[in-house]
Amino acid sequence: MSSVVISTRVRLARNLKEFPFPCRLNEQGREKVIEKVKSALKDSNSPIAQEFSFIKMSELTPQQGVSLVEKRLVSPEFISNTDGRGLLLSNDESLSIMINEEDHIRLQVIKKGLSLEDAYDTADKLDTLLDENLEFAFDSKLGYLTQCPTNLGTGMRASVMLHLPALEKSRAIGRIADNLSKLGLTIRGAHGEGTEPKGALYQLSNQVTLGISEKAAIENLKSITQQLVTQEEQARERLCSRIEIQDTISRSLGILKSALVISHDEALRLLSNVRTGIESGQIENISTDTIDGLMVAVEPATLTVKSGKNLNANERDIERANMIKAEL
Amino acid sequence: MSSVVISTRVRLARNLKEFPFPCRLNEQGREKVIEKVKSALKDSNSPIAQEFSFIKMSELTPQQGVSLVEKRLVSPEFISNTDGRGLLLSNDESLSIMINEEDHIRLQVIKKGLSLEDAYDTADKLDTLLDENLEFAFDSKLGYLTQCPTNLGTGMRASVMLHLPALEKSRAIGRIADNLSKLGLTIRGAHGEGTEPKGALYQLSNQVTLGISEKAAIENLKSITQQLVTQEEQARERLCSRIEIQDTISRSLGILKSALVISHDEALRLLSNVRTGIESGQIENISTDTIDGLMVAVEPATLTVKSGKNLNANERDIERANMIKAEL
Repeated sequence: MSSVVISTRVRLARNLKEFPFPCRLNEQGREKVIEKVKSALKDSNSPIAQEFSFIKMSELTPQQGVSLVEKRLVSPEFISNTDGRGLLLSNDESLSIMINEEDHIRLQVIKKGLSLEDAYDTADKLDTLLDENLEFAFDSKLGYLTQCPTNLGTGMRASVMLHLPALEKSRAIGRIADNLSKLGLTIRGAHGEGTEPKGALYQLSNQVTLGISEKAAIENLKSITQQLVTQEEQARERLCSRIEIQDTISRSLGILKSALVISHDEALRLLSNVRTGIESGQIENISTDTIDGLMVAVEPATLTVKSGKNLNANERDIERANMIKAEL
Repeated sequence: MSSVVISTRVRLARNLKEFPFPCRLNEQGREKVIEKVKSALKDSNSPIAQEFSFIKMSELTPQQGVSLVEKRLVSPEFISNTDGRGLLLSNDESLSIMINEEDHIRLQVIKKGLSLEDAYDTADKLDTLLDENLEFAFDSKLGYLTQCPTNLGTGMRASVMLHLPALEKSRAIGRIADNLSKLGLTIRGAHGEGTEPKGALYQLSNQVTLGISEKAAIENLKSITQQLVTQEEQARERLCSRIEIQDTISRSLGILKSALVISHDEALRLLSNVRTGIESGQIENISTDTIDGLMVAVEPATLTVKSGKNLNANERDIERANMIKAEL
C-alpha cells in the first residue's frame, strides 16, 4: 500500500453512567469526572497508563491549545472553552483521551498509514482498561449513550487522512464525495468542516454508528479507502507523466528550499506537490514522513509553540521558511 | 562603478559618396557596396581586419538572423529583408558592420560595462580605417550624410544597457524618461521600441547627432548614466533591505535552479531578480557576467540556434530550463 494514506484515527465516545453529560455538569462535577477517568487509567496497573501525562486545559496558553488542534489531538470545540476540561496524552501523542468534551470521554488512537484494525485494537484495549474501573452509560438496544445521537451505538468514529492531489486536480473529488455519502462515509478537507482542503489532505470517515458493528464499520471504511487509493494512484500515473506537473513539483521543492518568507497555505500547497513527487519517484532523498511531519509543523500555533517565541504573522512566515529549509 | 551598466554600444552611420542610399539601390548596386566595404577592410592591412568574418544575410536561416538581433548585433530591420545585405562580424562579436541597412555602413562597437570613451575610440579607429579606402558622403555643414535626417551630423548613436530593477519597481522610470527626453536622451526597454521592458533592462541613448560633437555627446550620456546609476543604487539599498524583496530574490534563484520548463519572459524576470541579489551581496558564487550571458542565451532564436535542433515553443521552454540549470 502506497503512502496515499497518511494516518488512521479511531475515536470512541464514552460517558459515565453516574454523571449527566458534560454540558449539564458544573465545574465541580466536571472535576469529579476528570478525577474518575484519571484514576481509572492509573488504577488499571497497565503499563500503558505510565505513558500518559495529564494536561489541565485551562492551564495552556491559547497557542498551546490551538497547536493540539493542529496536531489533531483535540477537537476545536475542546479548546473553545477550557473550563473543567482535561487531556490525557501519551508521550508519543498517538493516544489521547479528551475528558469533558461533548462526552465525558473521547478516546483517540492515531497510527501512521492505513492501519484501521490496529488502531481499533489499541482503542479497544484502552476502552476495556477504562471500563474495568468505570461504569459506562450503555443501553442494550442503543449501545453506548452519547450526548449527540449521531454517536449512539458504537460511539466509534474511524477515519483515514488521505493525500489526494491527483483526484483533487482532476476534480474527481466532488463526484466521489457524493457517492461516499450514500455509503455512510464522508470525505472532507483535513482542516475541518466547511474549510477549503489545503495541501490536498482529505479525511475520510464513517458516519453511521448505530446498527453496525465496529468491525463492520472498519471493514467498510478500509475497503472504500483502498478503492480511493487505487483511483488516486491511477490518476497520479496520468498526471505525473506530464512535464508541466513535473515542473510544478520540481519548482515546489526549489521554492521550499529557497523561500525566506512563506505563508501556511503556500507551504502546504508546495509540500503537497513535493509529497506527490516523492511518491512518483521524481524526488529522491526526502521521505514522505519528513513531509507529513512538516505538514503539521508548518501550522501557525504549532510553529509558534515550537519556536518558543512570541511571533507575529510576519515573523511566523519567516520562522516557517527557516524551519522548512532546515528540514529539507 | 557597479555593474548597473551591463554594456556600452557606439554605432556610426556612414554612406559611400558614389552610391545612392541602399533603399534606392538595386541588387547589383548593393552587391557592389558590399564588395567595396569588404575590400576596404581587407585592404587596410590592419590586424583588426583579420578578426572579421563576412556573413551574407540571405544565407542565414530565419532563426540565425533573429539570433543576431537578440544579441543586438544587427537591427530587426536588417533581417526583415536580407536581399543585398551583408554583415562583417568580429570573432568576439564586439565589432560589427551592417552593410546596406538603412545606410551603407552601420558600424557598431559593444563593450562590457560603462566604457563609452573606449567604445568610441574603437569605433573611431575602425571608421578611420574604412575611411582610408572609401569615400564617405560628407557635407561640411551637415556632417556625415545619412538616409534618415535624425542621424545627420556625427552619424553616431551611443547607448548603454542598464539594469534598473529598483527604479522600475519604484515606478520612477516614467518620470526619469520624461526628464531625459528634455536632455536629448531617450530611455526605453532593451527589447526595442514599443515593447514592455523585460528583465528590467533599459537602453539609454543619445538622440541628437547634429550640432554636437561625438565627444560632447558621449560626455553628456556618460554623466547622465552616472546619475542614473546612483539613483538606482540608492533605490536598491532601500529595496534590498526588505525581507519580501530578499525572499523574491532567493526564490527566483531557487526556481531557476529547479524549473523543468520556463518561458522567456519568466526567465528574464527571474534572472533580473538574481542579478539584483548578486549586486546586493545576497547571492554569492554567481557572477553578473553569468547572468548577463544567460539574459541573451535565453532568447528564443539564440537558444534554438545554440541547441542545434529544431525546437517548437514547448521544447524551447524545456531546453531553456536545462540550459539555465547547467549554467547555475
